[in-house]
Amino acid sequence: MIKEFAKLVRILKHFSQKTKKIKGGSTMSGHVNIAIAGLGTVGVGVCKILEKNGALLEKRTGKKLVLFGVSARDKKKERGVALEGVTWFDNPVEMAAAPEVDVFIELMGGSDGVAKASVEAALMAGKAVITANKALIAHHGNALAALAEESGAALQCEASVAGGIPVVKLLKEGLVANQFQNVFGIFNGTCNYILTEMRQTGRDFEEVLKEAQELGYAEADPSFDVDGVDAAHKIAILTSLAYGCKLSFEDVYIEGIRHITAQDISYAQELGYRIKLLGMAHQNAEGMISQYVYPAMVKESSQIASVEGVFNALVADGDFVDRIVAIGRGAGEGPTASAVVADMIDMLQGRALPLLGGAIADLTDISPVTILNRKGAYYVRLTVLDQAGVIADLASLLKEQNISLETLLQRGRSVGDVVSVVFVTHETTEDKMQKALQEMEALNAVTQPPVMIRMESF
Amino acid sequence: MIKEFAKLVRILKHFSQKTKKIKGGSTMSGHVNIAIAGLGTVGVGVCKILEKNGALLEKRTGKKLVLFGVSARDKKKERGVALEGVTWFDNPVEMAAAPEVDVFIELMGGSDGVAKASVEAALMAGKAVITANKALIAHHGNALAALAEESGAALQCEASVAGGIPVVKLLKEGLVANQFQNVFGIFNGTCNYILTEMRQTGRDFEEVLKEAQELGYAEADPSFDVDGVDAAHKIAILTSLAYGCKLSFEDVYIEGIRHITAQDISYAQELGYRIKLLGMAHQNAEGMISQYVYPAMVKESSQIASVEGVFNALVADGDFVDRIVAIGRGAGEGPTASAVVADMIDMLQGRALPLLGGAIADLTDISPVTILNRKGAYYVRLTVLDQAGVIADLASLLKEQNISLETLLQRGRSVGDVVSVVFVTHETTEDKMQKALQEMEALNAVTQPPVMIRMESF
Repeated sequence: MIKEFAKLVRILKHFSQKTKKIKGGSTMSGHVNIAIAGLGTVGVGVCKILEKNGALLEKRTGKKLVLFGVSARDKKKERGVALEGVTWFDNPVEMAAAPEVDVFIELMGGSDGVAKASVEAALMAGKAVITANKALIAHHGNALAALAEESGAALQCEASVAGGIPVVKLLKEGLVANQFQNVFGIFNGTCNYILTEMRQTGRDFEEVLKEAQELGYAEADPSFDVDGVDAAHKIAILTSLAYGCKLSFEDVYIEGIRHITAQDISYAQELGYRIKLLGMAHQNAEGMISQYVYPAMVKESSQIASVEGVFNALVADGDFVDRIVAIGRGAGEGPTASAVVADMIDMLQGRALPLLGGAIADLTDISPVTILNRKGAYYVRLTVLDQAGVIADLASLLKEQNISLETLLQRGRSVGDVVSVVFVTHETTEDKMQKALQEMEALNAVTQPPVMIRMESF
Repeated sequence: MIKEFAKLVRILKHFSQKTKKIKGGSTMSGHVNIAIAGLGTVGVGVCKILEKNGALLEKRTGKKLVLFGVSARDKKKERGVALEGVTWFDNPVEMAAAPEVDVFIELMGGSDGVAKASVEAALMAGKAVITANKALIAHHGNALAALAEESGAALQCEASVAGGIPVVKLLKEGLVANQFQNVFGIFNGTCNYILTEMRQTGRDFEEVLKEAQELGYAEADPSFDVDGVDAAHKIAILTSLAYGCKLSFEDVYIEGIRHITAQDISYAQELGYRIKLLGMAHQNAEGMISQYVYPAMVKESSQIASVEGVFNALVADGDFVDRIVAIGRGAGEGPTASAVVADMIDMLQGRALPLLGGAIADLTDISPVTILNRKGAYYVRLTVLDQAGVIADLASLLKEQNISLETLLQRGRSVGDVVSVVFVTHETTEDKMQKALQEMEALNAVTQPPVMIRMESF
């Protein structure tokens, strides 16, 4: 009897913990008050989904979905969505904690400041919290997951990686039976657009970047995208989900695409490759994890090479499922909002898992593998004085590092002037390659820093 | 106070309904007894996942996963998995209802008989039930979903469509914010393997089928695969998930690949197309739904054309997410078992949705669109006597139906003998095309039934 009573108490306790997620002014069976902080592209997208597909979602969830509050910089801006009757908050942090709010959606961006403060406030108030903010999660995900765990609030971030493609759900749920050899992909649409345009038109980086900025595909300050930081945020999140470890953004090796020239893209094509900015996570046999972001040459015939323009792709190699590839739009109003709303429906149906898949106490610390341990082939383009003996010198430097050549291209002759020498190595390690490159750069005949692009054989 | 009490009763009732799913010998917090009916490829795969990744999954779920019972045709067969201590059941229906069993996994196949009986028995006993059986779900999914709803048991079927690719979860959860214009894909690996081999080697259907049978890629009786029935089962399931309607397998238009020749594949290549057996669902502006399975010509440059060999792919066009493509292995031990186990983890974490996404009462009836309403272009190959006036006759028959020609190919001449005439139409409707084909077949100069392949422009 006492046992039965204890069980009943446990059940009630469990249940009360679950309902905590949806506390506030409404109940599980009633209507749900949604608050959106940030009415940029994605925020407007969420409003449009609620307008157009709200009835469908209400049928799915059995709950009335009400846009209760919004907060944005400019109250007067025309956004093409009806906001009559919606409470305007000047301060998103205040909105996050407002008692009427059930679900708080953070779409302001930025790893700190008001985005972080409002997410924290919402979690502490026990709200269901959704964010599309990869910088916030990459930098503060561990602490925010712990805060959510403590307060019994749900926190989800599907939209923070790969826009409309439900990659977070894929790793946390759909492929949960697997251990992953590799998780990699194209996670920055701006870079993929620029690289695709460069390949298709033969133009150089700066020119295509400028056009992308005019078209709205690149920010006025493009550095987060083109320097690889945005992709690094995303691979840090995916690494944690795939390998059950804590987020460790500071361990991501990051290299952007500014140094990629039309010439390199053209050589890549000649060699049967395309250049893609990849985010890659890999766990080795010792359980150590590498997190890399760099532009890589991938075989033209590979699935990932065919992902062009603003599209994103995730590739996951699981020990049972083998290879899964998911392709879709990685940004934009509709796709990103689709992911935000999917998170919300999961929460309203009580199906949200912890932010990082498991309880914080169960997540391991990463033993990082640095870029110097990378194994693979390399493409190198050197600008050299066209004089006798240069190739012999280069070959001897490679030999010293035990690096063997697979291909060497020297196009055109221009004795006394500079020419390009391109070579591709067989598999070697990054530290050897780096040493060889340093020595090459020191040669008198080499007139510019070598361009090195890693090659991937997926 | 009475209100409070009523609420408490509701809560307890709700909770007891939820725990019903995991009733039997164990509790939510204890260990979970798993029973597998059918120890073929997929059953063995599930055992292997439990062996290799069981610890990982126990960490995820906080539950001890125990393989309690198995049932298969041959007790003595060596399967490469340890079954010591596992209870053997000669009768899977008995195992399905055994009080010790918490999760019942049906991997026997077949739309009726013991598969159906055991799933029904398990549902009536309130077990969590997982099946990879597309025939069973396509034919009896509505009734089984109703039975599950009634008994409060969970029933899931991720592995029934596209093997390792979590397409069911994608439509039910990841893309839940969307209404779908199109859902289509490659859902039969056997057909895709045969068509890929035919293209790559120039061999004809019968020869490649024989080889596929020897390699184990096709069954001894291949008709379910090559006649399109298997793909039809799958598109029926996806249609229900995408459009919130009841399953309606009998409304699927089905055409297989037996009539595809090496010659047609070669012409397709010449025209810039590949031939793929597609399953397609589409809802028109009036809410009417088409469900088609047929070999279609798809542009060589399309994502779906690059899905070769035994791989499967799902393409979903959502009103907000735009196009999502998911590619992976559609069959085999590891991939299919990966999907089965994902279903199980969802259930053990209390996250399983109803089989068809919503409550049975909320699912609509399909207003079907027949194949005669299809709009699109057509490829036609005719075998005709090489004599004057034939082309003029054909052109006049097309003109009568208001069908306009896009391309006409007549290769080689052999006066008095038979030659091939190939043409491609502009967009028209199936009923017009069918009429024209009937009249063409009636021409004296046409010596064999016309070969017609539909063209898709995705």
